[in-house]
Amino acid sequence: MHSAGPSSIIGVVLDMKLTLIGFGVVGQGLVAILTDKAAELRRQHNFAPQIVAVATRSRGSLLHPDGLDPQGLLTAIAAGHLDHYPDAAGLSRGLDPLQIIAQSGAAVLIEAAPSNLQTGQPALDHVRAAFAAGQHVVLANKGPVAVAYHDLVARARAAGRSLLFEATVMAGTPALRTATAGLAGCQIAEVSGVLNGTTNYMLTEMERGLTYADALAQAQQLGYAETDPSADVDGWDAAAKAVILGAALFDQALDLRALPVQGIRHLTPADIAAARAAGERWKLIARITPQAAAVAPARLPLDHPLAAVGGATNAITYTTDLLGAVTLIGPGAGQRVTGAALLADLLAVHQRVSHRSIS
Amino acid sequence: MHSAGPSSIIGVVLDMKLTLIGFGVVGQGLVAILTDKAAELRRQHNFAPQIVAVATRSRGSLLHPDGLDPQGLLTAIAAGHLDHYPDAAGLSRGLDPLQIIAQSGAAVLIEAAPSNLQTGQPALDHVRAAFAAGQHVVLANKGPVAVAYHDLVARARAAGRSLLFEATVMAGTPALRTATAGLAGCQIAEVSGVLNGTTNYMLTEMERGLTYADALAQAQQLGYAETDPSADVDGWDAAAKAVILGAALFDQALDLRALPVQGIRHLTPADIAAARAAGERWKLIARITPQAAAVAPARLPLDHPLAAVGGATNAITYTTDLLGAVTLIGPGAGQRVTGAALLADLLAVHQRVSHRSIS
Repeated sequence: MHSAGPSSIIGVVLDMKLTLIGFGVVGQGLVAILTDKAAELRRQHNFAPQIVAVATRSRGSLLHPDGLDPQGLLTAIAAGHLDHYPDAAGLSRGLDPLQIIAQSGAAVLIEAAPSNLQTGQPALDHVRAAFAAGQHVVLANKGPVAVAYHDLVARARAAGRSLLFEATVMAGTPALRTATAGLAGCQIAEVSGVLNGTTNYMLTEMERGLTYADALAQAQQLGYAETDPSADVDGWDAAAKAVILGAALFDQALDLRALPVQGIRHLTPADIAAARAAGERWKLIARITPQAAAVAPARLPLDHPLAAVGGATNAITYTTDLLGAVTLIGPGAGQRVTGAALLADLLAVHQRVSHRSIS
Repeated sequence: MHSAGPSSIIGVVLDMKLTLIGFGVVGQGLVAILTDKAAELRRQHNFAPQIVAVATRSRGSLLHPDGLDPQGLLTAIAAGHLDHYPDAAGLSRGLDPLQIIAQSGAAVLIEAAPSNLQTGQPALDHVRAAFAAGQHVVLANKGPVAVAYHDLVARARAAGRSLLFEATVMAGTPALRTATAGLAGCQIAEVSGVLNGTTNYMLTEMERGLTYADALAQAQQLGYAETDPSADVDGWDAAAKAVILGAALFDQALDLRALPVQGIRHLTPADIAAARAAGERWKLIARITPQAAAVAPARLPLDHPLAAVGGATNAITYTTDLLGAVTLIGPGAGQRVTGAALLADLLAVHQRVSHRSIS
């Protein structure tokens, strides 16, 4: 570490009780990472996270104020339902998320359940309840921030708690933290990014000769695209990320439904060939300025930093006053990749709590 | 900001008294940036830095516990000497750096004077004196960290103060903060980077047909390379950065003099052509693992993320356990670019102090 941080000074390991709402791919990934890295987190960060509650929509819920066994959680959910988790004194089953948030005694709520991009629900209610209960919030899903960023920031401030959502933009590739911490002191004039891996994969394959339909079928086969691919190919996933970047970096309150959003559905092999003939390449670009945001395919010259990013990889370029262009390239999806973002956010909360505890 | 930080909660602007050792291109750049951004820093970060002392090797020094006028400092140094700064009650002139550090009452020492890469001096003594006086330290020069990282970290911890040096690796492009904050929770298995803009510029020009000698002459004309270009072209600038990355990210204590370091002096137009014929490109690569570090030219395939980085731009790739490869691309030198790194470090100190002050 290039800073002699306070946790290093005191050398005391701090427990942190966590509630996890949603226990699908992302939630299970986080639990697996916390298990794999338990010794490393304790040694390097004096950080000892402890899951006290897990809630799912249809596969049960568990709360134990003294902590749940991570491996037991993974085994139970692999068997299909949290009811398979072994009984123990003090264990509560079947509470709903709001009951759990009120009763958990957790320091942090991790919201990793699917949420509606139009309403932010049900996650939005969970986040509000967590702040009301004095908990920090780490988000894996885009809904609450895309819909109600300013309301949530106000509640976080009033509660003196953190609202963190690194996972929502490029998963573990630190698109938000690079802007807010790395580029602190710079004014960002514009952000442009390849923020949807599925469409970038498809465009890369179309450059290799596939039709749109074949590229989509291949993306679906690989698990990149859903059976209904519209969130990706029509640009809405990238647009929600643009709304979040606009909120987090420019304090904008954009309405996702009002954003100019264009996907890649209309791109033909002839379009791809025309770009190639001109020494250019199609990319689905989200562009955010302090005034506006939009998503549309664009033809970029091959030496543009975003043009070189192929396959499912994501990339983002910040145009700043002091540095000019700074570009960050990395994966934008995946179980461990998203888990890495949640862990980075948890460590940021841990650092904040550590700072306070020794003051 | 994607975190409701404590400075936002309290809404109180915090002064921070700064001492600046070295008032050349970098120091003047920082003062200009702090002046230009005074209102912005106060509004966005509740941050009100105040320069109380400036020391130079041969152009005088000034100390005023109540603060110096930034514009007056720039005007005086533009006229050739800090003696041109107007008199004022309480102003001390001609103190040496150690006297200034002891008497300044500053919260932060900014070391931006040239230092010897073999001994770290005279900056190393200044840094030690600052910690002894309970000051945080922000470094613009590589010497102290390249020579005495572990000693300085121990002193910083004992004093409960921060040691920050973002500027030393890729200037304002946040190579260190991306690794320590953005990738917190990931294990980094390897770092590889194009960390010297001068040689990257020269290699780009040699690909365009210039000989080594012509490319060097052009780099010197543009101010990228010194009259004695050996620090750049023989790889020592990149090697010092590799030592710093090894220390900061892997807790290594590498001896710069013992590092395997090879520059680009021997590369011929025939080498360049041979790489091109193989679909590759020469780059001067610094490579750091938890065990070792080295600098050498390498032939990279054109689709390698570091291969696409042309001209004086820098780039760094972190290979991590959870994310695979994450690459950061941006400028690595320049007055405002280096000033941006110092400002980011000052804001990190400010955030740490703010956290404490409201606890």
